[in-house]
Amino acid sequence: MPKKIRLGVLGGGGDSLIGVLHRVASHINDNYQITGACFNPDFKANKAFAREIDIPLNRVYIDFDAFIEEEMKLPENERIQVCSVLTPNFLHFPMVKKLLENGFHVICEKPMTTTLEEAKILQKIHKKAGTVFALTHTYTGYPMVRQMREMIKAGALGKIHKVDVQYYQGWINAVIHNKKKRSTVWRLDPKKSGISCCMGDIGVHAFNMLEYTTGLRVKSLLCDLNYLYKDNKMDVDGTVLLRMGDYIKGVIRSSQVATGEENGMTIAIYGEKGAFKWEQEKPNFLYKMSDTEPLQVYKPGHAYNSKLSLDSSKLPAGHPEGIFDSMANIYLGVAKAIRGKRYNDGEFPTMEDGVRGMNFIEATVESHKSKNIWVKMMK
Amino acid sequence: MPKKIRLGVLGGGGDSLIGVLHRVASHINDNYQITGACFNPDFKANKAFAREIDIPLNRVYIDFDAFIEEEMKLPENERIQVCSVLTPNFLHFPMVKKLLENGFHVICEKPMTTTLEEAKILQKIHKKAGTVFALTHTYTGYPMVRQMREMIKAGALGKIHKVDVQYYQGWINAVIHNKKKRSTVWRLDPKKSGISCCMGDIGVHAFNMLEYTTGLRVKSLLCDLNYLYKDNKMDVDGTVLLRMGDYIKGVIRSSQVATGEENGMTIAIYGEKGAFKWEQEKPNFLYKMSDTEPLQVYKPGHAYNSKLSLDSSKLPAGHPEGIFDSMANIYLGVAKAIRGKRYNDGEFPTMEDGVRGMNFIEATVESHKSKNIWVKMMK
Amino acid sequence: MPKKIRLGVLGGGGDSLIGVLHRVASHINDNYQITGACFNPDFKANKAFAREIDIPLNRVYIDFDAFIEEEMKLPENERIQVCSVLTPNFLHFPMVKKLLENGFHVICEKPMTTTLEEAKILQKIHKKAGTVFALTHTYTGYPMVRQMREMIKAGALGKIHKVDVQYYQGWINAVIHNKKKRSTVWRLDPKKSGISCCMGDIGVHAFNMLEYTTGLRVKSLLCDLNYLYKDNKMDVDGTVLLRMGDYIKGVIRSSQVATGEENGMTIAIYGEKGAFKWEQEKPNFLYKMSDTEPLQVYKPGHAYNSKLSLDSSKLPAGHPEGIFDSMANIYLGVAKAIRGKRYNDGEFPTMEDGVRGMNFIEATVESHKSKNIWVKMMK
Amino acid sequence: MPKKIRLGVLGGGGDSLIGVLHRVASHINDNYQITGACFNPDFKANKAFAREIDIPLNRVYIDFDAFIEEEMKLPENERIQVCSVLTPNFLHFPMVKKLLENGFHVICEKPMTTTLEEAKILQKIHKKAGTVFALTHTYTGYPMVRQMREMIKAGALGKIHKVDVQYYQGWINAVIHNKKKRSTVWRLDPKKSGISCCMGDIGVHAFNMLEYTTGLRVKSLLCDLNYLYKDNKMDVDGTVLLRMGDYIKGVIRSSQVATGEENGMTIAIYGEKGAFKWEQEKPNFLYKMSDTEPLQVYKPGHAYNSKLSLDSSKLPAGHPEGIFDSMANIYLGVAKAIRGKRYNDGEFPTMEDGVRGMNFIEATVESHKSKNIWVKMMK
Repeated sequence: MPKKIRLGVLGGGGDSLIGVLHRVASHINDNYQITGACFNPDFKANKAFAREIDIPLNRVYIDFDAFIEEEMKLPENERIQVCSVLTPNFLHFPMVKKLLENGFHVICEKPMTTTLEEAKILQKIHKKAGTVFALTHTYTGYPMVRQMREMIKAGALGKIHKVDVQYYQGWINAVIHNKKKRSTVWRLDPKKSGISCCMGDIGVHAFNMLEYTTGLRVKSLLCDLNYLYKDNKMDVDGTVLLRMGDYIKGVIRSSQVATGEENGMTIAIYGEKGAFKWEQEKPNFLYKMSDTEPLQVYKPGHAYNSKLSLDSSKLPAGHPEGIFDSMANIYLGVAKAIRGKRYNDGEFPTMEDGVRGMNFIEATVESHKSKNIWVKMMK
Repeated sequence: MPKKIRLGVLGGGGDSLIGVLHRVASHINDNYQITGACFNPDFKANKAFAREIDIPLNRVYIDFDAFIEEEMKLPENERIQVCSVLTPNFLHFPMVKKLLENGFHVICEKPMTTTLEEAKILQKIHKKAGTVFALTHTYTGYPMVRQMREMIKAGALGKIHKVDVQYYQGWINAVIHNKKKRSTVWRLDPKKSGISCCMGDIGVHAFNMLEYTTGLRVKSLLCDLNYLYKDNKMDVDGTVLLRMGDYIKGVIRSSQVATGEENGMTIAIYGEKGAFKWEQEKPNFLYKMSDTEPLQVYKPGHAYNSKLSLDSSKLPAGHPEGIFDSMANIYLGVAKAIRGKRYNDGEFPTMEDGVRGMNFIEATVESHKSKNIWVKMMK
Repeated sequence: MPKKIRLGVLGGGGDSLIGVLHRVASHINDNYQITGACFNPDFKANKAFAREIDIPLNRVYIDFDAFIEEEMKLPENERIQVCSVLTPNFLHFPMVKKLLENGFHVICEKPMTTTLEEAKILQKIHKKAGTVFALTHTYTGYPMVRQMREMIKAGALGKIHKVDVQYYQGWINAVIHNKKKRSTVWRLDPKKSGISCCMGDIGVHAFNMLEYTTGLRVKSLLCDLNYLYKDNKMDVDGTVLLRMGDYIKGVIRSSQVATGEENGMTIAIYGEKGAFKWEQEKPNFLYKMSDTEPLQVYKPGHAYNSKLSLDSSKLPAGHPEGIFDSMANIYLGVAKAIRGKRYNDGEFPTMEDGVRGMNFIEATVESHKSKNIWVKMMK
Repeated sequence: MPKKIRLGVLGGGGDSLIGVLHRVASHINDNYQITGACFNPDFKANKAFAREIDIPLNRVYIDFDAFIEEEMKLPENERIQVCSVLTPNFLHFPMVKKLLENGFHVICEKPMTTTLEEAKILQKIHKKAGTVFALTHTYTGYPMVRQMREMIKAGALGKIHKVDVQYYQGWINAVIHNKKKRSTVWRLDPKKSGISCCMGDIGVHAFNMLEYTTGLRVKSLLCDLNYLYKDNKMDVDGTVLLRMGDYIKGVIRSSQVATGEENGMTIAIYGEKGAFKWEQEKPNFLYKMSDTEPLQVYKPGHAYNSKLSLDSSKLPAGHPEGIFDSMANIYLGVAKAIRGKRYNDGEFPTMEDGVRGMNFIEATVESHKSKNIWVKMMK
């Protein structure tokens, strides 16, 4: 019976953007009910926010440990089924670990952990747990990204030989050029943010998008980062040369000082028979290119799209859906999985995506610090 | 205390697109809880759908009369506060009438009624009722439409002298060119759809958008409709010449046989000092033009936007929000009004918009049937 | 033997924009040599300009009469073969008349004359003369406009049922809003400019483009013009409702007060099977739309284009050609005609286009002055 | 007195695309007259072509040596003044050398030579000769590229910190995937084409564009090329990491197997205060970006542009000029220089651009062959 799935939320309270994104996404397909939460380490703020969005206060917990302890006391048919982990990065690992060990399904924000080692540990635990785990690489939920994936899988491009992914933002300009700001902001403090700022925050999205759409894997990479100032400890820009096969090469370009760029992720995949281009800021247009035919522009909602793409949009063509809908598609896939329904392996990013993402981040920093040598990735 | 507003839904069950649109919009800002409904005249389907989306079955009613009767028996603090009317057009009038008479707030799909006369009756009743009434001209909820309105109000264009609105779709091609289809589909049956298909369904959106953004009013119009086939009884295309002042002229172009167009609403407003252009299918880009300066492209989420625009987006610039978010902004305005909070007069379309819309539809048909003469609109 | 064609030029001296456009266009395909001219009524300026662009001074004439008189004395194999008429509008008629009567080929700027009556006289004379006459509706020379025409001719759209042409500029804003300027500028003086400013100058281009691409003819029209100020005597904006068949309707929108628009001509043609869209400011992109297939974007230089289109571009795809090249394609067609080579009937606009253009201009003004009634056009 | 400059042409006969491009460009501003030529090594074809485009046959020479010998016999005021070198790459060096040594001005197609060593020799000879030398990096002639350069020079971006240039084509797909074709086509034969295909043919344009617009110099680079097949000897794709200062980094991406790309050169320059973006296939739009202001779109012909940009367009805004006009702007600069008029240092690419271009090509191949190490460029 399609009773709503009981969803718990960790972090994401108040004005948190990631909080709004997940909350709206969970509502969109009528699958989830937020049943419990620990939105905020400050219990007062935690409760105030729960009241604001009308969550039962008896299921608002003082901290994560209380969350686990109290929920585990509840009968299974009342207990939270799946938990969204939206806390700062360093908390992902302990929380996801404990959630999985206690039999919860998990939806986790990226990056999955702060180190590859942690990621591998989670992978083992998850294997044992057998519950559903999803990593929210949000952009993989867009209908036209999914259309690209499906058409590539079906051979529309022939053999791929070149890839080019960009993820450009400009927001860190407001911080980086001011000595005081750049030395105090947590984003640029390795103790709080891990080993990479730009690659860890957005480069990893570009990497995931590339493997998601092509079905290929990065075998090795060479990276040059830019820290912009001598006293700055974190990368804010970088270019990564890629090898995905003997003669399949390409590049990931990622920046947080690309002045004036907002959330400029673009992907271009070139193959023997054709090519695809897609831009995150105009997500409802997918460009199919060929050397001999007119350019074709695919849009969501048309019968010519694949099932996976059609299942990822709700309205007829011409009614723009956006990033909330993209995230909602990931939540939709997770709901199917939790309910034991059939789902496609592209409906949400998995534990393996998380492990590979951490591998990518560490490899880029290693390459850069070793004076830009080639670094192999795991198979 | 911000307990969620109790929302009732009439119509919009099953796969209804308008149903999804309103349901998602109501969830987006955490303001509403669907508490009762009559989704479908077939009670079995009605209940099945309620179960699917997890609505309490004791508040699912067999018909509209039962809805009113039973809800009125409930204490005021349990009773539904606002009701979304998503039924076929001819039902809007009796339902809205009774809802208002019984003290409910109302959110109604457009067109508000099937005749101007009905609209005027509702207007009177609403005046007496004093509750909140909103008409869902969805496109007025987009942040960049609101930005345009606010900048025009602040004088950015100087005196406006020319307006040009387009609303082009192509979907009726699949019906109109087949004699059997066009004589049987309800959309082209005046008994079921009222006096106009194209103007009634989409032309009226264009009209509303024009008055919403400019703050001006259409004074008179001249219209030429196209029925495409002799045996077809409803317009599927039309052009409307407009006068909004002695020397303020313009045009509304509307079509359902604009082959290949999906939901192609565009608006261009030209004034002495500048101009605006906006396209519904790329809603997050607003073009500000001038004869002497470079074109400027405004996008949502930037600090340079007006308060009304900023309040209408949730994420930072570059994270595309879409039509669900646009509708959600209308629901947000209604929530403020219901809770007695301050709100801007552009936060949701009103009863007056509904009356003027019906006036527009009737005037276009009158002009056309009178061999394309000028018809005056109400003041 | 392909000796260059001897070209005479009337008007277009000094900084004249139309002068540059024709001069460059005549050079582009290596077909013409400017051999004689009367660039300017001021003989000193005339000669100075001839010297500047290195034209033999003995073939630079003091006025048009001298031009004819002296050229007719020359042996035929030295005499100018074709003459480009680039003078102010009211001079087109007497010059073209005399040129045709003396056996010259003529390339004439639009509008062809100042009245329909004059146009009809020229048509008769031309019939007798049997020489080549071309009217420079420049935009018909673009490769993608020609591709549209050829594909429509070949049935790509099926039965056309809706047309929509826009020609929006904003430059007259700099004049019209200033009482002194608008009462003194020649463009707005009916004695100097004829009966129409906006329709005469640019509306007629839109009209020609429509008949050129569709192969259909406007049968009747209804027009509303805007003069913007009571004391202004010429239209600066207008909308024209069109009927091209019983159920083939559409609109021409033309403005010189569309603030911020530069040279915004766009055309959209909708048929049962598909549609085309094209924009003059991005001339190398032709959009083919359908209700069921992805949008296709045609570009010049590809083998998938028609012969007429391919013959109208010189470089491989991706090397943008522009308006000089478009005009050059018209000159290319004229060269073929002069040399007696085979050419397609779409390679340059003809005398008939000129007559219909004048008919259009007069009909729009007549409709407007008769309070917006339908006016029939010639067959 | 502005008699036309006597222009000689070497190569570029028949259907040669580069021939058309230069010929048209030379005509566009009324500065040049083609006075002599050796279009083709086959004397019959050579003369036939001269006849076709109406060049005096007595100045059509059997080979380059005859060209020099005969022209030198002519009195200086009849002799060719400037010579356009459009022959295959390996002939550039000997021809330019001899032309400079004999006192001719030279316009030379890129790449200037086949090796850096040759380039340096030419540089010395040119210094002694003192005549005008221009290298036709065509894209530097576009008005909006020049606008970008001038605004950067004036400080519009503040300190530049990131650069990104792309030059993607797809045409070699038609050759490379066929073993026979790729082993026989001259483009992929190092003996005929030099050490690089992709970097030598188009990468070098990207490199030049970068230094032209920023006024900065590439200090070192690291390059990864792709040959796509084991038996293929020439690069058809490559990515180049760049350093233009301690913290000024970036990338050049160049490909001839970017399927479906036509002539996709784009450039993005990011600085502390703003950024520019430009695309060759839509050359009349220049995007100025900022983190805090709306995007601005600059277009040619507006008074807000710099003098260099305004001097590079001929018609009012909205009348698209293209690549012929871009090349014509380079010819215009050369004409000024030949006539001893003042000109800006950005009006045509120089000998130094040629030397640096060869340095770039050799450095990319060296880096790649040394397993992707950093290679320093000349100062």
